[in-house]
Amino acid sequence: MLSERMKHLKPYTPGEQPRDRAYIKLNTNENPYPPSPRIRNFLQNFDPETLRLYPDPESLRLRETVAREAGLTPDQVLAGNGSDEILSFAFYAFFDASRGPLRFPLYSYTFYPVYCDFYGIPFERVPMKSDYSVDLDGFLKSPLCGAVLPNPNAPTGMAHTLTALDGFIRRFPADRVILIDEAYVSFGAESVAPLINRYPNLLVVRTLSKDLSLAGIRLGYALGQKSLIDAVAAVKNSFNSYPVDTLASNIAILALEDREYYAELSRKIRTSRDRFVQALDIKGWETLPSRANFVFTRKAGLAGQEIYRKLRDRGFLVRYFNLPGIENFVRITIGTDEQMISLEQAMGDLE
Amino acid sequence: MLSERMKHLKPYTPGEQPRDRAYIKLNTNENPYPPSPRIRNFLQNFDPETLRLYPDPESLRLRETVAREAGLTPDQVLAGNGSDEILSFAFYAFFDASRGPLRFPLYSYTFYPVYCDFYGIPFERVPMKSDYSVDLDGFLKSPLCGAVLPNPNAPTGMAHTLTALDGFIRRFPADRVILIDEAYVSFGAESVAPLINRYPNLLVVRTLSKDLSLAGIRLGYALGQKSLIDAVAAVKNSFNSYPVDTLASNIAILALEDREYYAELSRKIRTSRDRFVQALDIKGWETLPSRANFVFTRKAGLAGQEIYRKLRDRGFLVRYFNLPGIENFVRITIGTDEQMISLEQAMGDLE
Repeated sequence: MLSERMKHLKPYTPGEQPRDRAYIKLNTNENPYPPSPRIRNFLQNFDPETLRLYPDPESLRLRETVAREAGLTPDQVLAGNGSDEILSFAFYAFFDASRGPLRFPLYSYTFYPVYCDFYGIPFERVPMKSDYSVDLDGFLKSPLCGAVLPNPNAPTGMAHTLTALDGFIRRFPADRVILIDEAYVSFGAESVAPLINRYPNLLVVRTLSKDLSLAGIRLGYALGQKSLIDAVAAVKNSFNSYPVDTLASNIAILALEDREYYAELSRKIRTSRDRFVQALDIKGWETLPSRANFVFTRKAGLAGQEIYRKLRDRGFLVRYFNLPGIENFVRITIGTDEQMISLEQAMGDLE
Repeated sequence: MLSERMKHLKPYTPGEQPRDRAYIKLNTNENPYPPSPRIRNFLQNFDPETLRLYPDPESLRLRETVAREAGLTPDQVLAGNGSDEILSFAFYAFFDASRGPLRFPLYSYTFYPVYCDFYGIPFERVPMKSDYSVDLDGFLKSPLCGAVLPNPNAPTGMAHTLTALDGFIRRFPADRVILIDEAYVSFGAESVAPLINRYPNLLVVRTLSKDLSLAGIRLGYALGQKSLIDAVAAVKNSFNSYPVDTLASNIAILALEDREYYAELSRKIRTSRDRFVQALDIKGWETLPSRANFVFTRKAGLAGQEIYRKLRDRGFLVRYFNLPGIENFVRITIGTDEQMISLEQAMGDLE
């Protein structure tokens, strides 16, 4: 009964959401702090009667808010049900088999190859440099239909500077889309959003899940020149007219406007991260330089899966990737200082 | 910069959501009554801190609730971001060019051909019978890759009985999926959900937008035997791990459990509908027999677009479809009695 397409599907596996016991959950890069306190007041005063109506299919007020924060216009913004949905729409709109493979880093978000299989897009993984940073030159060695570049990259946490990315985009084929995935940009990396009005082929994708502590509302968005956004919107409008619900849209607007609250959260997380990395250094762990709300770390003599299992036994959930070249690393989300201090102790004992 | 796929896209046009003035909005089949009163209390006591976490990617509690209401098991249920998303996943999973066209009624939900263009699925529209009912025999005249059958159908509002559908599904090729879209089933039609355990190729799709008055939260689901649900879930997990957000999931559970409240809403809407149709009869309108929360009606000498325009001028939004054969009809959502009485008066004057 299945379509031919189903033969090629290789679904994504999200980080586990265990129910067997209470863990300190540092495996899906969630924010350890609550979202904006304005949300509680909003929900207490929200009239549920408005839920009987469809949301605005254009999410105009939300797009106006995002545009204002990013220094762009609302027609340079598209909102969707999480950045995963936005990525899927963008892969459909811009990448196909007719013009060469799509390129993305060898170690990167493991949903990218899933989209490629979903839509039949050939792809090539660009090997990392020896320090695990993304090799920008490696993207440009031969023809391609486009590129996806997370900055900071996951699971490494490493970022390129705005200057480096500007130089890269300038050299990128002008008739191919370069998608920069900025899921983790607000923890110390530089956004390429200021370059959007210079590059018609630059699409930036962001999520509210990490920095705005709103993984539970499913909200992501794309930024780009109007012609790119119109193309992604045409895909959205051929798939689902109203992916952004009324509550999510209102909550997202409140959060985006509460700049000071979130600047403080980001500062706290970066401070915890840097302190945690120092503590790991002392205990003999090697940690890649992170600009994200997670770190990628290893210790001589320990496999990633082993670290994962031992920490799970001690009540900490982290993530490992069973891939050649990074099989000894674990990815650890930065939690509160209290959580990180107790994790440091657990990691100090590991052998 | 666009992919080859983009050449074939013909995006769906949702009913208008005007902002120019206040209308009595009877154009998108929204429920005129508020959703369950339990929702207000839930939102007032909801702790926004939980929004920092991803929702359960499996939506297990929600699926358990749906399963209980439908007399099925949780592995026979899949939830998504509105029934449009569920439909899109199902089209991907079951329909393709390799086994003949997909069939659906000539006059039906206009998103079906959009999905076909989106995924490259050939399709055929089955002509209606002379009374505008769906011609079940017409689906079976030659090979096909599957069928989509809304019951009640939109925009006609007409429904088949469970007995008629049982006979149809029995004759349907056992190796092709038959998708019954039950968006409007709770306003007097019969659900085929009790047949699911008899037919491995039967997939039922439902939404909370209409009968549960929750268009604003974007929640739909599929019912079917485990092997079909697993296939739709594989598509979902190749597209977006978490399409159902935390608030939507909780609100949906509350609403699904508040059976008495919604039974009363459905009763009120059916009573208003039947009274409205009688009043239109007296004024010389011809209305198809509706089992939905809308009616499809026409009056000799008036074109659908003309009716739409004249009613819009008088503050009522209805919907017309500029398609040969139904160009003289308008589709009118059933609102409150008060709204329908004032609409009757406006329609009585139309010439």
